[in-house]
Amino acid sequence: MDNLPVSGQRLWDSLMEMARIGATAKGGCNRQTLTDLDSEGRHLLLRWCKPLGLSMTVDRVGNMVFRRAGTDPSRKPVAIGSHLDTQPTGGRFDGALGVLAGLETLRAMHEAGLRTRAPIVLVNWTNEEGARFSPPMMGSGVAVGLFTEEEVLAKTDPTGAVFGRELARIGWQGEADPAWARNLGAYFELHIEQGPLLEAEGASVGVVTGASAQAWFEVTVEGAEAHGGNGMAMRRDALVAASLMIAAVEGIALEHGGNGTVGRLTLHPDSRNVVPGRVWFTVDLRHSSETALGRMVAALRVRLGAIAAARRVTATVTPFWSFPETPFDPTLTGRVRAAARARGYAHRDMPTGIGHDAVYLARAVPSALIFAPCHGGLSHNEAESITPEWAEAGCRVLADAVLATAEIV
Amino acid sequence: MDNLPVSGQRLWDSLMEMARIGATAKGGCNRQTLTDLDSEGRHLLLRWCKPLGLSMTVDRVGNMVFRRAGTDPSRKPVAIGSHLDTQPTGGRFDGALGVLAGLETLRAMHEAGLRTRAPIVLVNWTNEEGARFSPPMMGSGVAVGLFTEEEVLAKTDPTGAVFGRELARIGWQGEADPAWARNLGAYFELHIEQGPLLEAEGASVGVVTGASAQAWFEVTVEGAEAHGGNGMAMRRDALVAASLMIAAVEGIALEHGGNGTVGRLTLHPDSRNVVPGRVWFTVDLRHSSETALGRMVAALRVRLGAIAAARRVTATVTPFWSFPETPFDPTLTGRVRAAARARGYAHRDMPTGIGHDAVYLARAVPSALIFAPCHGGLSHNEAESITPEWAEAGCRVLADAVLATAEIV
Repeated sequence: MDNLPVSGQRLWDSLMEMARIGATAKGGCNRQTLTDLDSEGRHLLLRWCKPLGLSMTVDRVGNMVFRRAGTDPSRKPVAIGSHLDTQPTGGRFDGALGVLAGLETLRAMHEAGLRTRAPIVLVNWTNEEGARFSPPMMGSGVAVGLFTEEEVLAKTDPTGAVFGRELARIGWQGEADPAWARNLGAYFELHIEQGPLLEAEGASVGVVTGASAQAWFEVTVEGAEAHGGNGMAMRRDALVAASLMIAAVEGIALEHGGNGTVGRLTLHPDSRNVVPGRVWFTVDLRHSSETALGRMVAALRVRLGAIAAARRVTATVTPFWSFPETPFDPTLTGRVRAAARARGYAHRDMPTGIGHDAVYLARAVPSALIFAPCHGGLSHNEAESITPEWAEAGCRVLADAVLATAEIV
Repeated sequence: MDNLPVSGQRLWDSLMEMARIGATAKGGCNRQTLTDLDSEGRHLLLRWCKPLGLSMTVDRVGNMVFRRAGTDPSRKPVAIGSHLDTQPTGGRFDGALGVLAGLETLRAMHEAGLRTRAPIVLVNWTNEEGARFSPPMMGSGVAVGLFTEEEVLAKTDPTGAVFGRELARIGWQGEADPAWARNLGAYFELHIEQGPLLEAEGASVGVVTGASAQAWFEVTVEGAEAHGGNGMAMRRDALVAASLMIAAVEGIALEHGGNGTVGRLTLHPDSRNVVPGRVWFTVDLRHSSETALGRMVAALRVRLGAIAAARRVTATVTPFWSFPETPFDPTLTGRVRAAARARGYAHRDMPTGIGHDAVYLARAVPSALIFAPCHGGLSHNEAESITPEWAEAGCRVLADAVLATAEIV
């Protein structure tokens, strides 16, 4: 597609202009979902799309869909999507890169007068971040049927504001059935990696092969409280036992090539001179292979049980949440890889351990996810940053893969 | 002193009667300092002391002092003391045993018509527990000059009630200068061990040789937040590092024969799927030898620094509080040991890692502390329990050591 006039400069300028809406003093972005700033960002996208001859539909949970007609009425649409909402102390690229790379693709096609057999749609999903209304990825979740419209519209933020009322208030509740997405022929998303691997390896494109399976647990360790003035011999210290378990979680992740995170911990009675009698902590295990994750879970139970026995405490391991391994479509992923190779971009296959709209879409339609590097893996942070070259590389690979799928006439 | 008619039964009956004041449904005691129940307990002690011909003085921080005259006006008083206040969910013996064993000693002397050269005084110290008004051991602390009267009287409880006003309200603010205690010839205290050693070894008397030196720290570990979906390779997980440090604290304690406790811990950002970027925890190190404690502190700094370096995090170790090694008086302690031996009680020398009024008194006057076993080391707990035999053994050893010091005429 060397004739496709993708402009890295125009993409970068649009990213910077969008970033002014909700810009923070530290150079980040606070454009949380269903705020006035979210509405302003949506209007800017609409203004940009108008000269491209696209038709806009908004569905009942606020997902914005711009459609560029195809020449073959029998072909299902090929979608490009991501999100414009941000974390409260978010960056300028998480989400916006994917939407605006889609916009740049459509601009380049418009400029070149390219027609495709399949229609192409550009999507801005509502509330990907989940920072204001939890859980994340609500718009895409409803679109593929993982959540109901009713439950999402009834969600409240920490101040008690209701999702449905806020959506109507900012003027972005449409009438389309969110199930439109289940009729897509293909879905592509470009997103920053939010991890350090690509930058560390000098790669500018990540070909995401699938989303990791996840298994989350809560662990309660019960020992015995004792005064810190008592000797060590007869202690049953729940915190020392929990510490060995936390180190074991890391060991399990390293041995199996997965991820293991203990992110929360509380202890009782929480007094400087009292041996903790009870500790509660969370475990988040992930692996690109569900089978390997199963082995990690089995290892978790065995190791924690052994530590508990050795330390004369009890450990109760309770499943909290899980998410299946979600492979991306091999054909679409192959087109992404081929585009990166053809353009000479250093690239690598990799799983994503992090949820994205594309991970939900993959449960309903053929989908692909492309990663762009970000400095130091920093994300959900005002200091989040990428280079214009990384943005352009991701955009070109995205456009190539989309056109290869929608087929130029 | 085989002619001293100490009655184990009378001591036990008095313990049970005192325990009714503030008795809890679970068999414990809630008689917190400067409450109406504290006043009621003080009145019961006063009622018991009246028939023994003792004179009572109350000082300006509420310490109650009953005095039995000696025959030699040049001799300083020999004191027996402990405390009648309890924890909110306290037991029946922590403190009360020492006061009522002193009462039993005076009752037996009265019954036998024994006279001593030195006066004997019985003391109920105000607010040993520190549960309602922090810090603990306020009455004895003022008495030996570690706190000023003014600062103690101005302390407030969590509801805002002021120590001095509460003391006046319950009618127990006297006029004596709390410095009276610095003129004692000797101080003896019987207390439950609040640890499991004596029971485990089948000993019924603990001869306490000194109070451990203590060094308390706060440690802040700084790593880097990261999404739990990111791989393990580049993590700088503050919690895994802290876990290794907590295990190291235990190791240091075991290697040096001291105590090490991590009793509090908080982490940031405290989210299930985010690698903790910052962890804060407390360290409480104790050893009966101040020199050995110094080695433990040095080891703490070295080990934590090495773990931080290996895990690519920083660890800041900040001193929070310290307490010097406080030996008890060898002559008085020798009399306790001799009494236990003479009566055939299984006994052992031991340090105390826990603060007691006797530990403060030891900084001003010759002092001794005697431990009685308690079941399972359980204390500061409604299930705290001892046997009548343990109470009697402790009381007899106390009485013998007191009479050997005050000298029977």
